[in-house]
Amino acid sequence: MTAADTFTGRVEPVADDLSPLWAPRSVAVVGASDNPAKWGYWLASGALSGGGRRAVHLVNHRGGSVCGVPVARSLRELGGPVDLTAVVVPAAVVEETVTDALDLGSRALLVISDGVQRLPGGSALLRDLARRAREAGARLLGPSSLGIVDSAQELRLAWGHFTPGPVGIVTQSGQVGSELAHLLHRHGSGVSRFASVGAQADITFEELLAGLAAHPATTAVIGYLEGVRDAAGFLSAARALRAAGKPLVVLAVGDSAAGSAAARSHTGALTGSMDVLDAACRAVGAVRARTPAEAAALAHALAAGVRPRSDRIVVVSDSGGQGALAADVAAAAGLRVTPLGSGTRARLAEALPDGPAPGNPVDLAGAGEQDLSSYAAAAEAVASDAGAVVLTGYFGRFGVDSPGLGEAECAVAHRLTRLARTVPVVVHSMAEDGPAVNVLVRGGIPVFSDVETTLRAVAGCLRWERAVARDVPAPAPVGEGDRCSYPAAREMLREAGIPVPEAGTARSAEEAVTLAGSWPGATVLKADLDHKTEAGGVVLGLRTAGEVAAAHRDLTARLGLDSVVVERMDERAGVVEVLVGMRHDPVFGRVVVVSSGGVEAELWRDTVLELAPVDEAGATAMLTRLRSHPRLLGWRGAPGVDIPALTRAIAAVSRMPVATCEINPLRAGADGVLAVDALVFRGHSEEETA
Amino acid sequence: MTAADTFTGRVEPVADDLSPLWAPRSVAVVGASDNPAKWGYWLASGALSGGGRRAVHLVNHRGGSVCGVPVARSLRELGGPVDLTAVVVPAAVVEETVTDALDLGSRALLVISDGVQRLPGGSALLRDLARRAREAGARLLGPSSLGIVDSAQELRLAWGHFTPGPVGIVTQSGQVGSELAHLLHRHGSGVSRFASVGAQADITFEELLAGLAAHPATTAVIGYLEGVRDAAGFLSAARALRAAGKPLVVLAVGDSAAGSAAARSHTGALTGSMDVLDAACRAVGAVRARTPAEAAALAHALAAGVRPRSDRIVVVSDSGGQGALAADVAAAAGLRVTPLGSGTRARLAEALPDGPAPGNPVDLAGAGEQDLSSYAAAAEAVASDAGAVVLTGYFGRFGVDSPGLGEAECAVAHRLTRLARTVPVVVHSMAEDGPAVNVLVRGGIPVFSDVETTLRAVAGCLRWERAVARDVPAPAPVGEGDRCSYPAAREMLREAGIPVPEAGTARSAEEAVTLAGSWPGATVLKADLDHKTEAGGVVLGLRTAGEVAAAHRDLTARLGLDSVVVERMDERAGVVEVLVGMRHDPVFGRVVVVSSGGVEAELWRDTVLELAPVDEAGATAMLTRLRSHPRLLGWRGAPGVDIPALTRAIAAVSRMPVATCEINPLRAGADGVLAVDALVFRGHSEEETA
Repeated sequence: MTAADTFTGRVEPVADDLSPLWAPRSVAVVGASDNPAKWGYWLASGALSGGGRRAVHLVNHRGGSVCGVPVARSLRELGGPVDLTAVVVPAAVVEETVTDALDLGSRALLVISDGVQRLPGGSALLRDLARRAREAGARLLGPSSLGIVDSAQELRLAWGHFTPGPVGIVTQSGQVGSELAHLLHRHGSGVSRFASVGAQADITFEELLAGLAAHPATTAVIGYLEGVRDAAGFLSAARALRAAGKPLVVLAVGDSAAGSAAARSHTGALTGSMDVLDAACRAVGAVRARTPAEAAALAHALAAGVRPRSDRIVVVSDSGGQGALAADVAAAAGLRVTPLGSGTRARLAEALPDGPAPGNPVDLAGAGEQDLSSYAAAAEAVASDAGAVVLTGYFGRFGVDSPGLGEAECAVAHRLTRLARTVPVVVHSMAEDGPAVNVLVRGGIPVFSDVETTLRAVAGCLRWERAVARDVPAPAPVGEGDRCSYPAAREMLREAGIPVPEAGTARSAEEAVTLAGSWPGATVLKADLDHKTEAGGVVLGLRTAGEVAAAHRDLTARLGLDSVVVERMDERAGVVEVLVGMRHDPVFGRVVVVSSGGVEAELWRDTVLELAPVDEAGATAMLTRLRSHPRLLGWRGAPGVDIPALTRAIAAVSRMPVATCEINPLRAGADGVLAVDALVFRGHSEEETA
Repeated sequence: MTAADTFTGRVEPVADDLSPLWAPRSVAVVGASDNPAKWGYWLASGALSGGGRRAVHLVNHRGGSVCGVPVARSLRELGGPVDLTAVVVPAAVVEETVTDALDLGSRALLVISDGVQRLPGGSALLRDLARRAREAGARLLGPSSLGIVDSAQELRLAWGHFTPGPVGIVTQSGQVGSELAHLLHRHGSGVSRFASVGAQADITFEELLAGLAAHPATTAVIGYLEGVRDAAGFLSAARALRAAGKPLVVLAVGDSAAGSAAARSHTGALTGSMDVLDAACRAVGAVRARTPAEAAALAHALAAGVRPRSDRIVVVSDSGGQGALAADVAAAAGLRVTPLGSGTRARLAEALPDGPAPGNPVDLAGAGEQDLSSYAAAAEAVASDAGAVVLTGYFGRFGVDSPGLGEAECAVAHRLTRLARTVPVVVHSMAEDGPAVNVLVRGGIPVFSDVETTLRAVAGCLRWERAVARDVPAPAPVGEGDRCSYPAAREMLREAGIPVPEAGTARSAEEAVTLAGSWPGATVLKADLDHKTEAGGVVLGLRTAGEVAAAHRDLTARLGLDSVVVERMDERAGVVEVLVGMRHDPVFGRVVVVSSGGVEAELWRDTVLELAPVDEAGATAMLTRLRSHPRLLGWRGAPGVDIPALTRAIAAVSRMPVATCEINPLRAGADGVLAVDALVFRGHSEEETA
């Protein structure tokens, strides 16, 4: 059980045909074993389980038999061609085995063996094996893969048990993938395809993800990642899945420093790289999950076709307590549990004449127990008023605790599955299984054993349903070049259409006074230095010629400067300060950042980020995600700011052809925005330089 | 299945002996049934299961037999005395049955029947039944109870299955309690006592909670509540449990508007009443949980004796991916996964000579698989450096997937249970059960099937371990009286030791100018009105005699006033504005509130709250819980504020003998605090009036 992933050399992936891997006509397992504690046993027994579909050859240098099947001593003994060779041998003999497999005409190699990359010269060896495979028209998955599974093909070459189902799993940790498969099984779901990518010497995570878009048996996908090597490939695969209507759930590590270090990720200052991954997921309409349990529940619900029509859910419960708990948990998950419309209330009252007053949650109280059909009647009555119906409580357990009620309960369950064709129905039941739960699950209604999992899954399905994939350019690496002078930065902003205050450069106190005299109100003097505020290079609020002249003399003398920037000070009242920036993420390229500005920005950490560029609609969406959004709209009697001007500025910054731009603050008022300070770095690559 | 709880009349509870309820020498079930779909079946079969310990009488007006036992047609037929009578009859015959039971000498009545309170005159009837029971020396639990269980007494009078174990459950929703019992069972734990309180006509939730403090079989408690009727009783019960070393987990609804409405709770403006409940839990050292799953997992871990020694945990995993995910989830739960000390690293390297570099998470990679004892060796090596050890991954499944490894895995599990005597060990396993998991659970190590549940439980145990119960006075109801005049409010603050600016009252512009001339700097004029800011009754920054006189004339004329408050303006730089308030919660009485002040307080909702009074240490702890705490300590070069002066002010406000006090803002600077505006309402009750 390892997730070793230290190999960094890699042959450039191409959109090759991976059918020899996924639908081989013949398979050989080298390292087959009869010992259930060995990988060779799981690979051999798994390969044999698909023996009805393809020729299966077992190889072990000791010979004998495995699972009652005779074993060849080497691949060379086999003679005939083998499409896919699974290599389950010690690291030291991987090279020899791969060579034999290629000689035999294998077009796919699955290398389970761990430790190849830690051999002396291991990385070079892996690069070489990948190259030789490609030259021979073959592809290699691994090393350190935990294996692959394709349920429709009855192809099982992996440790562990895999229940067939609709969810595709591509994983950078074999064991996390295995846990996901196990969790899906517990929900009554399972795996269409499973691929543990190991060290990705040749076939990549991104390639395998893309392949699921055209895989008929797959209706939802979980990708577990510790890092994205090929961001363009990732974005394109995710887009392809979205286009195919197959939701992608991204499970990633790195939200914490320890998790990030453990997965060798990196974090930034205000926004760690997980925020960039979140932005990438938003850009391509994928949804993130935080834990394997959340990912499995969400993928199960998505594969079952749960597509909430709105964020307003109706909770139906046979317990006031459980209904109320569900309402709390729904709110925490970002869903609304709001009162029912009058038509719905009337329908409910008609459906449950002896029930209590119809609210949301609908509390069946004893009505469900009196007449099991109340559950279905209530769900049907509220359906047209619900983005999704969530049933929580005892239903599912009647037949378990009182077998005589099993049949009636199953009839209600069938009725609910018919309802689920018109409105998403998701169930939390105190029964993990039982006859009614089985009817629900087989009928496509997800059933979970705790209410939090249930409602998080519904919320995740809604996130996917509401997401819209957009076009973002393929990430291009850019090195950070020199800082632009402040006047040059101001000029770039102006050219990009972002208003800046009137200003000029003064070589003498007299020039400074003349400039300051050309506008009304106060003046600011700025030294054009790397850290001008910290160096005492900014003097604010100069109101008289004498103050301007004195400040000019002080700055030039104290900081040893020839000239100083003289700028009109923005003295508007009721202005909101915002930080707007653009930077290059090492993985996903350009990102645009907006945050609550001023000295307290870091205190509240009120920051949003998207892959760049964004258009004005995208910029508007960013603003609504700020916690301080109400302040922009006008807070406590203050006028709102000029939102169109603000979104134009954000969109413009997101398109600037530089490595880094940070406007801090951008002062937004009712009559427009002004960039009163900015830091710009040119890029190293030609096309990125202004 | 109902949680009906509409009865509001109640006989005053006393600390009576409830032994006839919990340890009856004889039990009668009225309404016994042979139909497993009826409550009468569950009560009868449950009662009979304890037949070795006590006489069990079954009663049904139809006679015949139930579960093979002859049934009396009425209680009157029984003749002999019955300690506890369970009443499982239609609402209409509850009165008659209770009368018969009291006549027969029953000293405890368990009323399962639902709907009594909805009969015409039902509330009065319940009050009458409770009174008659008390007069006869008996106590009554219910109506609408789901039942009671005492495992050690083999007393089972409830719907559903209850596995014996160490956790006591007292619940205001029978079905939530039943779900909790079921979840505990899935963790391999169970129930010591279970009490569903129903409508609390006589015996209260708080009384039953208190009773668990002295119940030997109970080592942890879950209380599910939808409302607290007897706050003093709740606080006293929670304190008694804490004193007995029995952790109390509080599961409550009302975090959301819908949940709150559903549970008929109330929310406040900045802080809902759930925040007050949180404060009450902190005051008595109880811990809150948000969902039944969280409550059950936490109670299980607490009952197993998990007491983390610090917030620093060491994660041991056989998968880099699962270890990294655990680190992320730990951080989200407020735990630290930080690098190991050098001594620990050396011990680990010695214990795992072929393992990878020892970090935290400890990634066993293939080492566990090569040698199962690596799991124990790694856990032992890190024990002295860990607040708790969390094992995550495949361990527990070896023996399930490869039965030949079962024995070796169990030996490692035994070694871990020995280690758990010196350091808390908690396990996330991909196996829900199996031989090794059973060894762990029987040996007192909690095992969970997902990593989030695991780490939330560890974090909850740490919260309990760190909590300290403190004395708070019994809540006393106070009605809000008149608003104090602003000068009177200022005087009260001054008497309480809270600094206020120099000020006076001016009946003429001349008096105002004279007052303003008695201090340097700027002056503020304030009209003493209910909503003075909104009414334009506050004029800031008056610097000249002319400005002061004009403002006085304007205020008196415009607002029709005889006099105006003239106050020295606090012009200190680098000041942080804080809101400090005290108010009466309808349930828990006095609470003290501190929040980030200024116009943006509501935007960031940075508010903390405790039951009042707090001392200066308590006030300091409140400040550290503010998100804006760094700003108080000195943010970005600004000096820190005078924390002792601030905490003195908070403590003083928390003791003020009024109904409501709100200082907004309290301006805190490096040289002390100043209350520059305040709103005070007197209380209606005598002792609360200043």
